[in-house]
Amino acid sequence: MSKRDFIDTYTYSKEEFQFMVDLGLKIKAAIKDGYYPPLLKNKSLGMIFEQTSTRTRNSAEAAMTELGGHALYLAPGQIQLGEGGHESLDDTGHVLGRLLDIIGARVNRHSEIMDLGKYSKVPVVNFMSDQSHPTQALGDLTTIEEHMPAGKKVEDLKIVFVGDATQVCVSTMYFAVQMGMDFAQFGPKGHQIPEEDLKRAQAIADKSGATITLSEDENVLDGADFVYTDVWYGLYDKELQKDEYMKIFYPKYQVNDELLAKTHNPNVKFMHCLPASRGEEVTDSVLDGEHSIVWDEAENRKTAMRAIFVYLLNPNMKIATKALADKYQGELDHMLAHEPYRTNEELNK
Amino acid sequence: MSKRDFIDTYTYSKEEFQFMVDLGLKIKAAIKDGYYPPLLKNKSLGMIFEQTSTRTRNSAEAAMTELGGHALYLAPGQIQLGEGGHESLDDTGHVLGRLLDIIGARVNRHSEIMDLGKYSKVPVVNFMSDQSHPTQALGDLTTIEEHMPAGKKVEDLKIVFVGDATQVCVSTMYFAVQMGMDFAQFGPKGHQIPEEDLKRAQAIADKSGATITLSEDENVLDGADFVYTDVWYGLYDKELQKDEYMKIFYPKYQVNDELLAKTHNPNVKFMHCLPASRGEEVTDSVLDGEHSIVWDEAENRKTAMRAIFVYLLNPNMKIATKALADKYQGELDHMLAHEPYRTNEELNK
Amino acid sequence: MSKRDFIDTYTYSKEEFQFMVDLGLKIKAAIKDGYYPPLLKNKSLGMIFEQTSTRTRNSAEAAMTELGGHALYLAPGQIQLGEGGHESLDDTGHVLGRLLDIIGARVNRHSEIMDLGKYSKVPVVNFMSDQSHPTQALGDLTTIEEHMPAGKKVEDLKIVFVGDATQVCVSTMYFAVQMGMDFAQFGPKGHQIPEEDLKRAQAIADKSGATITLSEDENVLDGADFVYTDVWYGLYDKELQKDEYMKIFYPKYQVNDELLAKTHNPNVKFMHCLPASRGEEVTDSVLDGEHSIVWDEAENRKTAMRAIFVYLLNPNMKIATKALADKYQGELDHMLAHEPYRTNEELNK
Repeated sequence: MSKRDFIDTYTYSKEEFQFMVDLGLKIKAAIKDGYYPPLLKNKSLGMIFEQTSTRTRNSAEAAMTELGGHALYLAPGQIQLGEGGHESLDDTGHVLGRLLDIIGARVNRHSEIMDLGKYSKVPVVNFMSDQSHPTQALGDLTTIEEHMPAGKKVEDLKIVFVGDATQVCVSTMYFAVQMGMDFAQFGPKGHQIPEEDLKRAQAIADKSGATITLSEDENVLDGADFVYTDVWYGLYDKELQKDEYMKIFYPKYQVNDELLAKTHNPNVKFMHCLPASRGEEVTDSVLDGEHSIVWDEAENRKTAMRAIFVYLLNPNMKIATKALADKYQGELDHMLAHEPYRTNEELNK
Repeated sequence: MSKRDFIDTYTYSKEEFQFMVDLGLKIKAAIKDGYYPPLLKNKSLGMIFEQTSTRTRNSAEAAMTELGGHALYLAPGQIQLGEGGHESLDDTGHVLGRLLDIIGARVNRHSEIMDLGKYSKVPVVNFMSDQSHPTQALGDLTTIEEHMPAGKKVEDLKIVFVGDATQVCVSTMYFAVQMGMDFAQFGPKGHQIPEEDLKRAQAIADKSGATITLSEDENVLDGADFVYTDVWYGLYDKELQKDEYMKIFYPKYQVNDELLAKTHNPNVKFMHCLPASRGEEVTDSVLDGEHSIVWDEAENRKTAMRAIFVYLLNPNMKIATKALADKYQGELDHMLAHEPYRTNEELNK
Repeated sequence: MSKRDFIDTYTYSKEEFQFMVDLGLKIKAAIKDGYYPPLLKNKSLGMIFEQTSTRTRNSAEAAMTELGGHALYLAPGQIQLGEGGHESLDDTGHVLGRLLDIIGARVNRHSEIMDLGKYSKVPVVNFMSDQSHPTQALGDLTTIEEHMPAGKKVEDLKIVFVGDATQVCVSTMYFAVQMGMDFAQFGPKGHQIPEEDLKRAQAIADKSGATITLSEDENVLDGADFVYTDVWYGLYDKELQKDEYMKIFYPKYQVNDELLAKTHNPNVKFMHCLPASRGEEVTDSVLDGEHSIVWDEAENRKTAMRAIFVYLLNPNMKIATKALADKYQGELDHMLAHEPYRTNEELNK
């Protein structure tokens, strides 16, 4: 049985992204109307978290259970991947693939999620690594679809990411170029998207007609349909102290009303993956204001999870015919009616 | 969509309490007969615990899953509310309300559960704060209903709480006065119910015909139908060391056979929210004796949780017509039959 | 209502073991064909872990949910059994038995799981103690059944456990003698199966026709159908440091290709309960080689869990008639159509 992982956004085609967005929105519409399609019935997701998480964990767990499945939460410390663990990652991946139907993991190092995908026989979903955050990316693309400016198509959009080149920034670039958008990062040198990712994205852009711009010039905001930001303190090994990152980013890269005005687009939408550090990378007036679509983004974390799980599990899903199911149930009923069960009392006689 | 929280018992009317008790008992009867009504089908409860819990967490989680729903457990440290958290409570409440259908939280400070109710768009249930423990209260009222003395109605009952004015003591007072009972606390000055709660309860009592007595005199036990106690070490900021609380409460306020005899009621029932410190606030002979209904109380924690969740979720629950469900499922089947799925192998070709 | 626990393998008869193996394999076949029999519908398993676990926890939780039930995970520190706990084990067992349908526990001391069985009104399953690991044992017997040598019956088998007398070694001995196999431990004196277990197993062997051999002589491997090993560092209070156990067991008791050759059986199968310390008790070439059935063993942890839960819960399971279910649902629908629900806004008017 062959399988597919969801680890890096750049391995997914425009056609696949569009399918997953449509699938997620269809399921979301059904549930808003009171119908929960049982597309993940009896399926088990193992969730490995090397760091805690609110949005990712809750959205994944709710997505599984709403559609008839189940999610197991393996908290930080309850399972160890990589060198710290007692068991080799190879063995852990092997075993989990025998017990579960799909695995999601938030890891410290991207190589860990790559190894997990390699060794596990079941699909593996990247719940964020130091390099990418693809479930966030699909949710964001879904939110963009829901807030598409009148008269525009996805290829016509311009999205500007403001601030640090976090893994969310990089994942945003990948889906933007895959879909044929104009993508820009407005951020200081030394905190712009790394060369390797840039080259890979440019190769995709060359085919899709997308453009990529990295700039310290605020004019790059002009004409943006969507302005996106993330926290400034970096993550993983490059994490910065507050006074350091404030010196680098503040006030130039703070998304406030003045910065939004530089898009010259009265209908510009503001996005943030959350959690936000209010007063640092974004002001209250923007986060809580009329341009903000951050709560829709948060809700679409779940929309995306539903689509990803259904997409990865569906092709290999086997459903018994009614006749076969009846046969098995009949045999089981017969066995259980004749079981040699004894109570503790009978045993101790 | 408007909603209702279950945070403080005193905001619930006698009519509502009675409805929830009846609802819980009906569901309990159905399950004992082998029918699990799917009243929470596909619904997700987020459980936030700032402190660990055995009874509350297990009863809430089992209640959700028995009725077709699901519960997510957010352990102490996995999510932070209030000042300690990275994210503002406002934002966390906002986000959880987009991902889940209902939220329960055990918090250190009552203000946290109030804020969570204010910011969340979905119902919030207080799983115990430093001021009240309403899910315990509803379970206790249910247990009282099951053990109603022959020939009496709820308005005829007398309930005496012995010992410290814990949040369980206060919550007991509130449901007692709401239902029109005679309520007394037999406890030492300095550990009696605070003035603010007393005034609020007296206002309710004035309408319902209930009475409230706080006393250091053991004669207050006379005629009690129910005697209730809780641990002595206080909780939250007023927590006491063992030698301190023993000096204050022992032996006068220990519920033992002699103390129960002072009710002059051979059918008096003994209640305890558990866990108990055997040999301190209660003796083995009382806890394990014929008057004890503490295990029924523990079981009714689940009875109450079922009723609360169904009560809060039911009015806004939307269930698709069969035709609409069939339409969505047909569209999804069509999409999934034509999905652009590729395996890892196909991708790497 | 009387019940049965699954705590020690030696209390289960050959007939019962065989039934549970057959039941597990039937359910496994049904699921592989796409039918998930709802044999644990609405049932709640409480899982208490005093130590972390990958295989046991995941297999138990997935087993419950696949068959329609639910599992609650009580992590180390979230609940305390025995002397460390605030609440007596008696009380905890009492309470959990009122809230849940079945309990599983991984404990530090065997006496704790015995007490839990004694005080709980619902079935208790031993998820490993310092003395036995019965859910592993049933999974292993299932794996042996799947890999039965051509022309042999279970009574004809020889199984040799290599290395330390861990609780897995002891549990393997018990099911082997119960089923009438020849069992041997190839391990150094001082690390052989304790006298008490040996005497109890010999009494069973006398009836079943099994044999038991403890030996430091490698010739004991001759003719083995299955060679089993476990880590060397012991567990619980006898835990050894790496340099200590290497001196005792290495290289004589390492399962490598040379050691397997001493069985003179080209079809010998290699078993390991995992996790493995590769390069210590087993080499990569054996663990990943053609004789290894360790991944099937891991998968059958779940096969065994399904059978155990269904076996223990089935006799007391009550299922309402359609008429009774309709009656209850009708009454509940009527109640909910007339509920006195008020929103926060209505309340504050």
